[in-house]
Amino acid sequence: MTRQPTKEDKFSFGLWTVGWTGIDPFGSASRPALDPWEYSDKLAELGAWGITFHDNDVFPFGSSDEDKTRIVTRLKDAADQAGLVIEMVTTNTFTHPVFKDGGLTSNDRGVRRYGLRKVLQAVDLAAEMGASTFVMWGGREGAEYDSSKDLHAAMARYKEGLDTVAGYIKSQGYDLRIGLEPKPNEPRGDIFLPTLGHAMALIADLEHGDIVGLNPEVGHEQMANLNYTHGLAQALFSGKLFHIDLNGQSGLKYDQDLVFGHGNLLSAFFTVDLLENGFAASPDAPRYTGPKHFDYKPSRTEYMDGVWESAKANMATYLMLADKARAFRQDSRVQEAMTYSGIFELAEPTLAAGETAADLLKGTDEFDVDKAAQRDYGFVKLHQLAIEHLIG
Amino acid sequence: MTRQPTKEDKFSFGLWTVGWTGIDPFGSASRPALDPWEYSDKLAELGAWGITFHDNDVFPFGSSDEDKTRIVTRLKDAADQAGLVIEMVTTNTFTHPVFKDGGLTSNDRGVRRYGLRKVLQAVDLAAEMGASTFVMWGGREGAEYDSSKDLHAAMARYKEGLDTVAGYIKSQGYDLRIGLEPKPNEPRGDIFLPTLGHAMALIADLEHGDIVGLNPEVGHEQMANLNYTHGLAQALFSGKLFHIDLNGQSGLKYDQDLVFGHGNLLSAFFTVDLLENGFAASPDAPRYTGPKHFDYKPSRTEYMDGVWESAKANMATYLMLADKARAFRQDSRVQEAMTYSGIFELAEPTLAAGETAADLLKGTDEFDVDKAAQRDYGFVKLHQLAIEHLIG
Amino acid sequence: MTRQPTKEDKFSFGLWTVGWTGIDPFGSASRPALDPWEYSDKLAELGAWGITFHDNDVFPFGSSDEDKTRIVTRLKDAADQAGLVIEMVTTNTFTHPVFKDGGLTSNDRGVRRYGLRKVLQAVDLAAEMGASTFVMWGGREGAEYDSSKDLHAAMARYKEGLDTVAGYIKSQGYDLRIGLEPKPNEPRGDIFLPTLGHAMALIADLEHGDIVGLNPEVGHEQMANLNYTHGLAQALFSGKLFHIDLNGQSGLKYDQDLVFGHGNLLSAFFTVDLLENGFAASPDAPRYTGPKHFDYKPSRTEYMDGVWESAKANMATYLMLADKARAFRQDSRVQEAMTYSGIFELAEPTLAAGETAADLLKGTDEFDVDKAAQRDYGFVKLHQLAIEHLIG
Amino acid sequence: MTRQPTKEDKFSFGLWTVGWTGIDPFGSASRPALDPWEYSDKLAELGAWGITFHDNDVFPFGSSDEDKTRIVTRLKDAADQAGLVIEMVTTNTFTHPVFKDGGLTSNDRGVRRYGLRKVLQAVDLAAEMGASTFVMWGGREGAEYDSSKDLHAAMARYKEGLDTVAGYIKSQGYDLRIGLEPKPNEPRGDIFLPTLGHAMALIADLEHGDIVGLNPEVGHEQMANLNYTHGLAQALFSGKLFHIDLNGQSGLKYDQDLVFGHGNLLSAFFTVDLLENGFAASPDAPRYTGPKHFDYKPSRTEYMDGVWESAKANMATYLMLADKARAFRQDSRVQEAMTYSGIFELAEPTLAAGETAADLLKGTDEFDVDKAAQRDYGFVKLHQLAIEHLIG
Repeated sequence: MTRQPTKEDKFSFGLWTVGWTGIDPFGSASRPALDPWEYSDKLAELGAWGITFHDNDVFPFGSSDEDKTRIVTRLKDAADQAGLVIEMVTTNTFTHPVFKDGGLTSNDRGVRRYGLRKVLQAVDLAAEMGASTFVMWGGREGAEYDSSKDLHAAMARYKEGLDTVAGYIKSQGYDLRIGLEPKPNEPRGDIFLPTLGHAMALIADLEHGDIVGLNPEVGHEQMANLNYTHGLAQALFSGKLFHIDLNGQSGLKYDQDLVFGHGNLLSAFFTVDLLENGFAASPDAPRYTGPKHFDYKPSRTEYMDGVWESAKANMATYLMLADKARAFRQDSRVQEAMTYSGIFELAEPTLAAGETAADLLKGTDEFDVDKAAQRDYGFVKLHQLAIEHLIG
Repeated sequence: MTRQPTKEDKFSFGLWTVGWTGIDPFGSASRPALDPWEYSDKLAELGAWGITFHDNDVFPFGSSDEDKTRIVTRLKDAADQAGLVIEMVTTNTFTHPVFKDGGLTSNDRGVRRYGLRKVLQAVDLAAEMGASTFVMWGGREGAEYDSSKDLHAAMARYKEGLDTVAGYIKSQGYDLRIGLEPKPNEPRGDIFLPTLGHAMALIADLEHGDIVGLNPEVGHEQMANLNYTHGLAQALFSGKLFHIDLNGQSGLKYDQDLVFGHGNLLSAFFTVDLLENGFAASPDAPRYTGPKHFDYKPSRTEYMDGVWESAKANMATYLMLADKARAFRQDSRVQEAMTYSGIFELAEPTLAAGETAADLLKGTDEFDVDKAAQRDYGFVKLHQLAIEHLIG
Repeated sequence: MTRQPTKEDKFSFGLWTVGWTGIDPFGSASRPALDPWEYSDKLAELGAWGITFHDNDVFPFGSSDEDKTRIVTRLKDAADQAGLVIEMVTTNTFTHPVFKDGGLTSNDRGVRRYGLRKVLQAVDLAAEMGASTFVMWGGREGAEYDSSKDLHAAMARYKEGLDTVAGYIKSQGYDLRIGLEPKPNEPRGDIFLPTLGHAMALIADLEHGDIVGLNPEVGHEQMANLNYTHGLAQALFSGKLFHIDLNGQSGLKYDQDLVFGHGNLLSAFFTVDLLENGFAASPDAPRYTGPKHFDYKPSRTEYMDGVWESAKANMATYLMLADKARAFRQDSRVQEAMTYSGIFELAEPTLAAGETAADLLKGTDEFDVDKAAQRDYGFVKLHQLAIEHLIG
Repeated sequence: MTRQPTKEDKFSFGLWTVGWTGIDPFGSASRPALDPWEYSDKLAELGAWGITFHDNDVFPFGSSDEDKTRIVTRLKDAADQAGLVIEMVTTNTFTHPVFKDGGLTSNDRGVRRYGLRKVLQAVDLAAEMGASTFVMWGGREGAEYDSSKDLHAAMARYKEGLDTVAGYIKSQGYDLRIGLEPKPNEPRGDIFLPTLGHAMALIADLEHGDIVGLNPEVGHEQMANLNYTHGLAQALFSGKLFHIDLNGQSGLKYDQDLVFGHGNLLSAFFTVDLLENGFAASPDAPRYTGPKHFDYKPSRTEYMDGVWESAKANMATYLMLADKARAFRQDSRVQEAMTYSGIFELAEPTLAAGETAADLLKGTDEFDVDKAAQRDYGFVKLHQLAIEHLIG
């Protein structure tokens, strides 16, 4: 049995996760909605360190300022009392039909102005709650039809929106960073910034890109047929892994938001290995030290008992994988197999110190092509050692 | 019937396209291999403006310098005589087993040095041939197993390799730009820089990134479940659309390299519309003016007649789509429908000139949320007009 | 411009299609719900021949018998007055949370009995409405986790349920056939009978399988990465194509329910070609003569104008494709190309009349393997002729 | 550490698996080809119980009868000496270009006759080798273009071919059953009989379908976005699971043929659980008792050491999963959780003994819909117990 999670594990949950009532495209709610503080109290009891929310997870869309303040204060008090950090706040620009063509990139300028204002208000709320990350998931920024958008203008408006928000954060002196959450599709046919690569590419074009990074979600990257751990590594390489969304997905279909590890278990193992143990041959490479944030949905077949069981399952699976990953890395057979496979050799620069391309071209390294072609990289054996650690 | 292609259309073909002999994972060659100049002569006859090649499309791997020179000279002469531009040259770091774990990111440093040298030699060749683009497809840069690579080191070596090549181009004063060709998988389980977004993100980290851009391929982006035209638009937005690879793909499966338009025809229509007519509401946005390069494979069921028919089909389909796209844009009903859908409205900045985030927050635009929520965007009607133009 | 649809075209629509209010997993309704007869009147006006519905499209789940009768009578009257056939009726065993683990295969026997009774009641309703087809889409019959079901028992219960319903139809003397609608996933992680092949395989095991066939949907088969037209052909071969659901899907993602042709247009062309013109070389093969039923959703970005535009677009696209398909088949160049490609040759039995396997083995046909290996099948040229007809 | 495999485990390997030399669509061979008996001797040494092969894995296409006999005899002797069963033999109708449009469904009748004769000869060989299964993978039976085939004729020819082969087996009194191996695509754009469901549907239409069943492969079903274990269960339900091909696949891409468990590990666990422990609530349901046959490819990065390591990894992973699955089933917490989830309840017929549909309709079961809707199925908790057993 796995140990109980503690605050040191930095596990956090979106209130919308345990709070999902089971409405899906073909079904109505299968569970009641609780008050926000009921979710947070229970999450604290289960061992969570933090919570996160969208503005409208807490107060309904269109609430009066008085209602907002009252509800938010009550939640903040509950969190404080339970010892929970509100580590991230975000805004909902996707549920209400006013955002049906997007918030920052709607063809309707009035909607864009309304959406941008809503985002800025949520930034104020995030700062007030003491959050360190402000996530932006542009779930409605996209199209079903290639004719629906001037795609250049869409990128320009996305950039304008992000720079406006980032600039505002700076101007207010907030200690907040933005985490963009990419997703390829659903609820739009094609969403802009469909993968973490696309998001990083736009960030590189921003004026205030220094405080804009990523919040990559397991299932979202997998919905683009991509390797999540590879994505995390590239984000770390570029210094842009600001936050993460852990969950599970079983292949190319609707966004499942399963419990972490309940989808591609082997991939989850290597994700945890990277998060806990870093890169094998690059001790000085950037590491992720932020919250382990779960963005999942308790299956619609579960009632409230199942909701809490599923919340626990996320943390338990992470902790089991972390134990396995530690043992994997410490096993001397694994170290040997890594050496055999050349894992450490890849950390050596290809060029020698001071060597130029021209030097390389003129150079006459002895290199036996045929012998090199016959190198046995031992990748299958190394991978099988991981399997043995995981299930042996 | 469609008009014949002319040099002004700037259609180019890889020699490896018509030169594919039909070897696939489950089958041996179904066609003979011709000499390189036989392919180029025939392509010229069919209306191509340019050709492109990998070093080893022309001379075998491991050829002596004499052989290389002799064969390349003969090809160049043939191209000149046929009036063909050699617009792009690239290198093959994927066929020979020495590259089985990659060229620039192999775990074996000896292989990396050998691979990098081969790339640099191909750069010299590209310059000699008068090419303007040097494509780099890192098809073997990747892994099947998450344990096989220190992913940070892999990114570092990829960056080192790209900067070495780009720096060399500058140091030699070559008039060449690098086009990275992303692909999510095949022949590796997961290839590094799996989408154009990931490639642009790494380019932003390069020292010599100014001469490094993209060569996105229709099928490759679609293998990551992504919208190719959206990708082109983001690449143009970032000034990185240096070259394109047109072909066809029918969904998420092996890399099919079908004739352009023989996969997702509707998507091909909007790709051509973007290439020929630019962004509807952004007349000053960057445009692509480079070659229309086909990277496809004549189906293995075809013999030589079918090879040439398939080459023609690429150009004919492009020209038909271009005609349709022009008529689509010029139709006043389409212009009205675009206005109704707010296409032009998206080109207006969200903030007014001089307006700040703080202004927006304080501001009191009159905005009727309910009314805006009920806006009929007319996207289906607009799309149906495209369908009518295409097949009506 | 395309001609207006007429009753002879046999176009029908589900009331739930134009009646979809835009609720999706991340959004609330973007349009009002009208009364059932408002939808049917408008559909008649647009040229539809028939309508179809789930019981709860018309009366709310849990309605009293009086309410049911009142509402259904009013709808039937409206349909009669508008000259609309109610060609298909089905039941909703997926929206209410009681069915969260399925109707016929829920682990809860009470639910199964309740679900089966609801299906039988809907069969009575279908007969009363004069429908000829009773569709069964078991959207909740499935699982997210391989541990959730005894899969043998699930198949046994599915069989029991289907045989009970089919047996009941026979016992009542209803002139009704059942059309199973396969789908691989959504809303369940894995749905039982995920493709039309799986459904036909189970039908072959039924006691009353003679009146059980298929209602294959374009998007559903494509969500299993399959070719819809190939599927229709196999269903026709086995005499099981009882009904069809036409719509559009753009690849492997959530169930999009786009307008027919707004997804994979080329595939839609060949679907219409098969429906309208039958098999090229098999004049005596079974043909589909039933309704052309659209099961789509007007995009959430559209308001009521867009709803009707999208309904029209389904019919208009079908009619345009039918025109193109007719011209394609009648073109003598196409007939020649088909002959060249061996299309007609495939209709010849492989064995000669009376020839046995033993004869074939002993036989000494002259067969030049190398020559046959070099046959140019001309498939690309033939396909390009289809492209020319479609967009030229 | 896992125990060594023994003959009782009934592990078998295709000679083409360890014999794959690494040729892929973008690369030439990375390993030498050994003689068939070298592979079989080594497999025996590693603990395999059986071997399988295509005719042309053993003797080259076009060999003389003398050469065939000599080579086959030598292999049979080697297998006998090593105590290996030759449990399955199949034929290669996909590598040689003569089969580029298929063997049984080529548009060219001469090719079909040639292909059918080759299949029949391989049936004789299978019988001679003492094989119990004759697998038919129709990898080239399909098309890239919907225009390429009369799809009715294709089904008719497929049926004719299968019935001819099955009839021949009966006429010769061979103790052989045919196992069809479905695959959705690769090397053709769309392969006929793309999933095990489609294959079972055609089998139901055969004259000699009683000796025709399935040989489903993990990766092939997953390439159609389907659940392999669900597929096995339906095949068992219909009495058609004649043989299995175990391997690994990482999502929707080219056919990877990874080591079993190196793709979707969680799915592999439940596959082994089904194979070893049967259905939880259906003790009398059909079980699979045939060989555990591995159809995988040692990664191209491996040399000969890696080939044998990968062969071992298949068996070791299977044995580890079998241990975990046994413990999972025997755990009383699991049994309780299964009861809570209603696993056993699904084995109860929905109707009472003798109850008819009419009885059910008239019946007045007390059924509290709201209470049933609130049932907590406990699926996530049960699944988490599986995760705990697997990695805890």
